[in-house]
Amino acid sequence: MLDSMIGSDLTIDDVRAAHDRIKPYIHETPILTSSYFNALTGAELFFKCENFQKAGAFKVRGASNAVFGLSDEMAEKGVATHSSGNHALSLSYAAGRRGIPCHVVMPRTAPEAKKAAVRGYGGIITECEPSTTSREAVFAEVQAATGAEFVHPYNDPRVIAGQATCSLEMLSQVENMDAVIAPIGGGGMISGTCLTLSNLAPKIEIYAAEPDQADDAARSFRAGHIIADDAPVTVADGLKVPLKENTWHFVSSFVTDVLTASEQEIIDAMKLTWERMKIVIEPSCAVPMATILRNPEVFRGKRVGVVITGGNVDLDKLPWTLG
Amino acid sequence: MLDSMIGSDLTIDDVRAAHDRIKPYIHETPILTSSYFNALTGAELFFKCENFQKAGAFKVRGASNAVFGLSDEMAEKGVATHSSGNHALSLSYAAGRRGIPCHVVMPRTAPEAKKAAVRGYGGIITECEPSTTSREAVFAEVQAATGAEFVHPYNDPRVIAGQATCSLEMLSQVENMDAVIAPIGGGGMISGTCLTLSNLAPKIEIYAAEPDQADDAARSFRAGHIIADDAPVTVADGLKVPLKENTWHFVSSFVTDVLTASEQEIIDAMKLTWERMKIVIEPSCAVPMATILRNPEVFRGKRVGVVITGGNVDLDKLPWTLG
Repeated sequence: MLDSMIGSDLTIDDVRAAHDRIKPYIHETPILTSSYFNALTGAELFFKCENFQKAGAFKVRGASNAVFGLSDEMAEKGVATHSSGNHALSLSYAAGRRGIPCHVVMPRTAPEAKKAAVRGYGGIITECEPSTTSREAVFAEVQAATGAEFVHPYNDPRVIAGQATCSLEMLSQVENMDAVIAPIGGGGMISGTCLTLSNLAPKIEIYAAEPDQADDAARSFRAGHIIADDAPVTVADGLKVPLKENTWHFVSSFVTDVLTASEQEIIDAMKLTWERMKIVIEPSCAVPMATILRNPEVFRGKRVGVVITGGNVDLDKLPWTLG
Repeated sequence: MLDSMIGSDLTIDDVRAAHDRIKPYIHETPILTSSYFNALTGAELFFKCENFQKAGAFKVRGASNAVFGLSDEMAEKGVATHSSGNHALSLSYAAGRRGIPCHVVMPRTAPEAKKAAVRGYGGIITECEPSTTSREAVFAEVQAATGAEFVHPYNDPRVIAGQATCSLEMLSQVENMDAVIAPIGGGGMISGTCLTLSNLAPKIEIYAAEPDQADDAARSFRAGHIIADDAPVTVADGLKVPLKENTWHFVSSFVTDVLTASEQEIIDAMKLTWERMKIVIEPSCAVPMATILRNPEVFRGKRVGVVITGGNVDLDKLPWTLG
């Protein structure tokens, strides 16, 4: 059973099963290209637009795989998580499609807009104090009261198998890729990418991109063990969380390199992508482009898949308009 | 010869010839759909994404048709215009692809960013004073000195035939459309839409959308003759120009209705499109969605093609962040 597996048990069959399971609930998102960015980088870039995905981010793949993989008995009690970002939206969306409850524990201090978005997808919010102790205590209460199944945002093999469907689609959409690059926070997308590519196309290089100011994955990669930072500060707010054992397995086994970029490089790459490609992307998804621009020699002449992970951004607080 | 034609002489063969001529230089832009907007409007909407077009707007279709339709002899002297918006960018792009000069007369007071964008596409700028008198005088000098061919932004049959290729693509991309809606300023896109649909699919309704504050097309449509406003003020800055005889021919003959929306409705529709569809669109392209939301009964239950005309917007001055 997937939910008692560890990451290293996952096989390509789990990815294929995930894709069959979630297909009715997700988009096969398009690939966009940009002659401007190709000229700028000297590479051929293929942007996998998960910002156009249901609930606005790739996370709906993993969340849907977890939700629709539950037995009817387990599903009845619903699912639960304590993310306040895209995973909470995605899990609420997937639970809504299955018609089961989704419980989300969020700090009472979280922005109203985020709470409204979770409720908009049908999530049931229980508020906690803005501390780890309170969050864990409240989450334990919610789980005890409801019996809901915990779906971790990234350290769950069911979630990793779901995220892996993104690169499965890319392989059928883009021929002869030399490399794939994706942002890394907790490592769910990168682990899924490793799972698919190590099985189906092991020659394709896998680059993980993260902010200089939240470079725990880069330091972990070089040290050979997980290094977790306490509350890093970066505009790429989806990338602040640390690796965990299931994602570390993939990062340490299959990633080619972890590249980093500064806050200004991330903001510039984000704005340039909006300006030239006319797509709305989150700061986190600008990190791969920022690292490509910082390290052109790594990518020049290559056909590179770039995962645009999501497009949920507060249009009233764009980073280039903030002092 | 197309350049001595008037609008009413245009046939569907001119549109097909235009499409063959410009295909190597433009994108066949994708159609996006949104379950959110379908639920909100009760219609099935098919967004033709010309914001992803070369130079960021549909205007590259008409400009390319004009540029690549010139004889070698005429082309040698280049092309000229006095637009400072998307037409100037598009004409510069097309001229660059043919390797001929493009002269653009712009007020010296135009924003530096706009001048830089035109230069970025290879346009040669001659500055005038910010008055019609100066613009006309300077433009006449440039034409006399260079012999460049004037390409009007919309009142030129070559341009109308080029814009008509957009709905030609839509017909092959979307089955059984009941209606098409596009913004109307000078009427180039709407005229092209009329040209294609009146010939190939005359049952499809054609709606033109414009701001309440620049509703000259709506008033012209109801009056039965061209009414031109002097310097209307609207956030939809692509839609301030008046109809001219060649576009009036199509508007008066084939348009089903001209619908309007308020400034706030346009800004709200623009922001909502960015938030939900994750695409960058200009204020002008939000006008159709704003009019659909104002007149849901007109569109409910219909399959509607919505032309997203362009995505060139100043990210430092988004209308919802301005007081």
